Amino acid sequence: MQLTQFTDIGLRVLMYLTQHQRESLVTIAELAEQFQLSHNHLIKVVNQLVKLNWVESTRGRNGGLRLGIPAHQLHLGRLIRALEGHTPLIECDKAACVLTGSCHLQRILAESLNQFYQYLDQYTLADIVRDPTQSILQQLHQQWATH
Amino acid sequence: MQLTQFTDIGLRVLMYLTQHQRESLVTIAELAEQFQLSHNHLIKVVNQLVKLNWVESTRGRNGGLRLGIPAHQLHLGRLIRALEGHTPLIECDKAACVLTGSCHLQRILAESLNQFYQYLDQYTLADIVRDPTQSILQQLHQQWATH
Repeated sequence: MQLTQFTDIGLRVLMYLTQHQRESLVTIAELAEQFQLSHNHLIKVVNQLVKLNWVESTRGRNGGLRLGIPAHQLHLGRLIRALEGHTPLIECDKAACVLTGSCHLQRILAESLNQFYQYLDQYTLADIVRDPTQSILQQLHQQWATH
Repeated sequence: MQLTQFTDIGLRVLMYLTQHQRESLVTIAELAEQFQLSHNHLIKVVNQLVKLNWVESTRGRNGGLRLGIPAHQLHLGRLIRALEGHTPLIECDKAACVLTGSCHLQRILAESLNQFYQYLDQYTLADIVRDPTQSILQQLHQQWATH
């Protein structure tokens, strides 16, 4: 059981954007180099984050990305649930299970997943970038901006 | 986020084996046909279930598989945790994250996963095969045994 690559990238992008500096926004090129990710993958994820209003995108010469909502208001359960979408933990139809519709596993798994997200909702994006992470992110961005 | 195919198959096998009848054990061939799964996939999973003592395998003409532990003693959290193994929900090294070792996400995800498994531990294998599942399983096995 693993989070999707989409969620993984989404979390990295959001974490990176927590070290916002007014005069130097973050670009897709910067994210691609820092996390060694392809532009294509990143653009799909960033578009989704913009659609959710979690990221603001500004066009133009000094344009770029920044958080659309303060990090301490982005609860991890809500965030990961939205990035993961509604795929169930087990797909009854995938291997055409003879028990589809009769077994009680799907419901119990869905309840357990709710517990998982509820626990995560105790924490926000701000919690996962506490130092030393925040300092490292600032250094990374400064190095990029001055190179 | 989805359970692995290995866990999915493991759960289906265990559910199927709950409708044990002393005179007619379940074979790999029967499981393969009922769930439309390949022998190879099934054998790997069944070997692991035997190693965990959750399934007993008997050789010989009337040989086959049956549960090694009563279904009401097999708690779902323990069961799914063992089948899933220790892969973390997010792999920091997979895309070589610059934040590896500094960020707090991995720990928080691990705690949340514990909550997920603890919730699942309220239920047992017996709970997910309550009727109508149990009756369907018995019918499936009888049809197979007499065809």
